[in-house]
Amino acid sequence: MHLLTQRILAEGKNLGQGILKVDGFINHQVDPRLMDACGQELARRFAHLGATKVLTAEISGIAPALTTAFHLGLPVVYARKQKPITMPNEIFLTLAPSHTKGRTVELIVSPEYLGAGERILIIDDFLASGQTILGLARLAQAAGARVIGIGALIEKSFEGGRALLAPLQVPIESLAIIANMDAGQIIFAE
Amino acid sequence: MHLLTQRILAEGKNLGQGILKVDGFINHQVDPRLMDACGQELARRFAHLGATKVLTAEISGIAPALTTAFHLGLPVVYARKQKPITMPNEIFLTLAPSHTKGRTVELIVSPEYLGAGERILIIDDFLASGQTILGLARLAQAAGARVIGIGALIEKSFEGGRALLAPLQVPIESLAIIANMDAGQIIFAE
Repeated sequence: MHLLTQRILAEGKNLGQGILKVDGFINHQVDPRLMDACGQELARRFAHLGATKVLTAEISGIAPALTTAFHLGLPVVYARKQKPITMPNEIFLTLAPSHTKGRTVELIVSPEYLGAGERILIIDDFLASGQTILGLARLAQAAGARVIGIGALIEKSFEGGRALLAPLQVPIESLAIIANMDAGQIIFAE
Repeated sequence: MHLLTQRILAEGKNLGQGILKVDGFINHQVDPRLMDACGQELARRFAHLGATKVLTAEISGIAPALTTAFHLGLPVVYARKQKPITMPNEIFLTLAPSHTKGRTVELIVSPEYLGAGERILIIDDFLASGQTILGLARLAQAAGARVIGIGALIEKSFEGGRALLAPLQVPIESLAIIANMDAGQIIFAE
């Protein structure tokens, strides 16, 4: 997606060790018009799959998941990393190793909002190692729901997430695919 | 705002001790169309104030802040509660007691995205005790920016936040104002 790749080239920073800083428009400061355009494009790519709900993980997944869900006319559920007091005691919980945080995080969803028979579209900001998205897929499966697609704003293809998620046998769409970040550059896949 | 108050009456739950459960459409599962309508209304109320940026706190503030910023054509910054590795070491940090979490949380903003001369519109999901919003205002002031307005989806007027924020001398707008949650009810202000 041209709009996103151009923005990454203009403002993204390669901090080394595979870390891409995009917190001027995605992760800390957010450009709502860019997020809306990305959500519209992800919605277009998944529109034919009959999703009933969008699932993401707090925090950075919320903006792209919200705009995608808006354009699909669906509710969005964001997995929490801490159980809030308003959540019942019976929950779906899984653990996902976080590459960028250097530790394992909990992903928690209330059974109130994830049920058997749902068709789940998973949306996140990054597809890197794929561990967070795989954790979200486990939550959906634990609920008896079916994952029907996976979408991300930015994929770092050199971290192998797509291969990790291949056994789910669902379409995976990324709006910008970075093939190489060695030597301080940001090189997109063709 | 009729759309929001009706939704709270239909689906909100009074859990006692002033805790309102609205995680079916705001805090865990989110209704993107409702959030868009709320953002549009908040944008309308603050359009004349010349804001240059919207500021909120992760996590639940993100959805309404994003849609408000979208309709104002502004970037949105969400204060982080943990410093990510992509953030520089020099940061703006303040502590805010969280009523619902029963502890103090850190609110962190990078100086890259909050600068002197900015005109800041603070948006959050709840205005209750006002402590989180006051913390956001401190961050803006530390950056030399000026707070020009405060907006919330839901105000619990019996928790005194509006009085706490009065010294800021800026317009405060809430789309639904709950005056009383005693006796298991949800009673809106006139």
